[in-house]
Amino acid sequence: MKDNVYKLVELTGTSTASIEDAVAKAIKRANKTIRNLSWFQVVETRGSIEKGRPLRWQVTIKVGFAVNSTD
Amino acid sequence: MKDNVYKLVELTGTSTASIEDAVAKAIKRANKTIRNLSWFQVVETRGSIEKGRPLRWQVTIKVGFAVNSTD
Amino acid sequence: MKDNVYKLVELTGTSTASIEDAVAKAIKRANKTIRNLSWFQVVETRGSIEKGRPLRWQVTIKVGFAVNSTD
Amino acid sequence: MKDNVYKLVELTGTSTASIEDAVAKAIKRANKTIRNLSWFQVVETRGSIEKGRPLRWQVTIKVGFAVNSTD
Amino acid sequence: MKDNVYKLVELTGTSTASIEDAVAKAIKRANKTIRNLSWFQVVETRGSIEKGRPLRWQVTIKVGFAVNSTD
Amino acid sequence: MKDNVYKLVELTGTSTASIEDAVAKAIKRANKTIRNLSWFQVVETRGSIEKGRPLRWQVTIKVGFAVNSTD
Amino acid sequence: MKDNVYKLVELTGTSTASIEDAVAKAIKRANKTIRNLSWFQVVETRGSIEKGRPLRWQVTIKVGFAVNSTD
Amino acid sequence: MKDNVYKLVELTGTSTASIEDAVAKAIKRANKTIRNLSWFQVVETRGSIEKGRPLRWQVTIKVGFAVNSTD
Amino acid sequence: MKDNVYKLVELTGTSTASIEDAVAKAIKRANKTIRNLSWFQVVETRGSIEKGRPLRWQVTIKVGFAVNSTD
Amino acid sequence: MKDNVYKLVELTGTSTASIEDAVAKAIKRANKTIRNLSWFQVVETRGSIEKGRPLRWQVTIKVGFAVNSTD
Amino acid sequence: MKDNVYKLVELTGTSTASIEDAVAKAIKRANKTIRNLSWFQVVETRGSIEKGRPLRWQVTIKVGFAVNSTD
Amino acid sequence: MKDNVYKLVELTGTSTASIEDAVAKAIKRANKTIRNLSWFQVVETRGSIEKGRPLRWQVTIKVGFAVNSTD
Repeated sequence: MKDNVYKLVELTGTSTASIEDAVAKAIKRANKTIRNLSWFQVVETRGSIEKGRPLRWQVTIKVGFAVNSTD
Repeated sequence: MKDNVYKLVELTGTSTASIEDAVAKAIKRANKTIRNLSWFQVVETRGSIEKGRPLRWQVTIKVGFAVNSTD
Repeated sequence: MKDNVYKLVELTGTSTASIEDAVAKAIKRANKTIRNLSWFQVVETRGSIEKGRPLRWQVTIKVGFAVNSTD
Repeated sequence: MKDNVYKLVELTGTSTASIEDAVAKAIKRANKTIRNLSWFQVVETRGSIEKGRPLRWQVTIKVGFAVNSTD
Repeated sequence: MKDNVYKLVELTGTSTASIEDAVAKAIKRANKTIRNLSWFQVVETRGSIEKGRPLRWQVTIKVGFAVNSTD
Repeated sequence: MKDNVYKLVELTGTSTASIEDAVAKAIKRANKTIRNLSWFQVVETRGSIEKGRPLRWQVTIKVGFAVNSTD
Repeated sequence: MKDNVYKLVELTGTSTASIEDAVAKAIKRANKTIRNLSWFQVVETRGSIEKGRPLRWQVTIKVGFAVNSTD
Repeated sequence: MKDNVYKLVELTGTSTASIEDAVAKAIKRANKTIRNLSWFQVVETRGSIEKGRPLRWQVTIKVGFAVNSTD
Repeated sequence: MKDNVYKLVELTGTSTASIEDAVAKAIKRANKTIRNLSWFQVVETRGSIEKGRPLRWQVTIKVGFAVNSTD
Repeated sequence: MKDNVYKLVELTGTSTASIEDAVAKAIKRANKTIRNLSWFQVVETRGSIEKGRPLRWQVTIKVGFAVNSTD
Repeated sequence: MKDNVYKLVELTGTSTASIEDAVAKAIKRANKTIRNLSWFQVVETRGSIEKGRPLRWQVTIKVGFAVNSTD
Repeated sequence: MKDNVYKLVELTGTSTASIEDAVAKAIKRANKTIRNLSWFQVVETRGSIEKGRPLRWQVTIKVGFAVNSTD
């Protein structure tokens, strides 16, 4: 393993199911345009409320990935 | 949408099931006395332990709601 | 209840299943060597990514327990 | 001045005009139901965007006021 | 113990005597109108100065209490 | 509204006029290359000084926007 | 530009007009006794309330300036 | 004084008397099993409430001590 | 009350007696050279340990005071 | 100097040599694809360990640069 | 790689040479009694001063390591 | 050692060489006008970039020193 450089981008995933699913949705989306996704960290957990219940989880994460010479 | 004012109250929901359920319980309780619940943000996640296992999730959230002229 | 003293240790549990399971794994492990585990608080939630999906949740917690005179 | 006790409530004021106006709107609203409003502190400044411009400032403040024996 | 929900309110107690007394004054006042006060956490410690001495301690705390179905 | 994913980018707008104008300038610039700008949050407020007066406000914000499948 | 050393001092400016004016007042005052004022950063925004309106903005800033060999 | 290495452990002392006493109790307990206790820093101050009064102060500290080659 | 400007300086008071006394010692010392001391806020509480007991409380505060035109 | 807008991107540089070298590697890499790199700020310093020694420094920075009308 | 559990301990390394050396000294010391040291993160950087120069760097880190079933 | 009072001042040292050198330059400068410099803590590490390389490290520190009765 050599001296890589990584980039972090911040994303908010949303889901009516769970915190984990909101994170998965954000990562799945990032994977469409970014190669080498490597790790994430949760920055903030929020959500919307409807009819007295949490409707949609909004989880903001930072996603890290190695940047290659052609990125 | 006009220039609304919102109030935030801080609640701790507890649940033996999951983080999401603890949040849902806090919001469900708030809904009994507060109209217009609109959004929440997770402030802290803690829990109690019994017999070497997490027993009860204690999730503190802030809940926001529009305050009307009669509140 | 007298004037107890508690110690806090910091652990990272990991799990491919969920945040709750990662916490449970850390506590289960701590329970092997520490008596009187009493409460935990979540410090950080991270994870690894593989094939565009969260692979393993890494949840760092502090675990508190009463220290007895023989610990 | 005796040993007063103060309460703090958290509000989000919104305004299309300015940060100062969003704060003023939150305080004006609080003043309808709370006596003795004394000071505020800005907690967070956010806003919505429309057509490439900030549309509505959303400023969250804490407002402090002395609580009297009949409150 | 079932899945309770707790509410947290933020108060500033003041006292010319000590930090502990400022906290006690805030809790004593809260106890007049809130049942089931359960725990507190110190948020900020400030004070006023007069004639080169601390005159009045101003200690801001959050106070937690279980909310019952009739609150 | 389905389970959207949002991206957040961090920008510093500058202005000799006001904090609000510095934010507006950052958002106006972002709008040239990003579609669907939705919300912002202020991260930091700084500025340069010249001749004993604030010369240029430098306001760092995070801007959020929904990412579509073709971004 | 050589390897300068800068000092930061913390000031609270107050104004009935605006946040920007409170900052300007603090800097104007600092300029009376400090040469080379170079930059500022906002640390905290508070204010007093009178008659249900923000009366006086209190903005705490750090001001930075190069220290010369004779300061 | 040579290049020592120090370890920090986190403890919560509790006391019905005062913040200072809660800290002293935590340090006294740590002293039973740790040599060379050198300094502490307060991390958090909480407490339990009973009958409208603070019952037991719970003060979390970090305690630092030099680790010798045989520890 | 006109638009005053205040300066904040950071001090660490030390005392073998209590947190309050450490704060008082810092303020008493500041009062020798600074006029108009007005308020303080506690930034950090630490201490040294000797023979398994807290020896000296080290409390860091910020002290605010109005700066007059001749300061 | 007119009212520029700047963008900040977050990068993690890694190096077996030093913190400074890890930062330099991140900036060197950013310079391949971003014009006008202007300043950086260190966000976090971590590292991996091998054979009881720090193996690779991992320093996360934010890098700021002016965005031109064609970026 | 299975679902490991990691423990984090907090250490302060000191060195007259550099920040990196202070970290290395803390890790070297930890390696005497802890197996599987895996990563570290810098928590705080301080130091002592003598004769107008930094004398000894004091760098506090958290060190993480997998805990095996016999630890 | 009696109950000393310490003052903390905030400085930014700059250096093209290293973080350690930037700190040393700030302390050397402070030593010209302040007696009894005792300790420092790093508050922030930033820098300027030129030609795709870190040009000048800008390290902000707090420096503590005992204040004597004649200061």
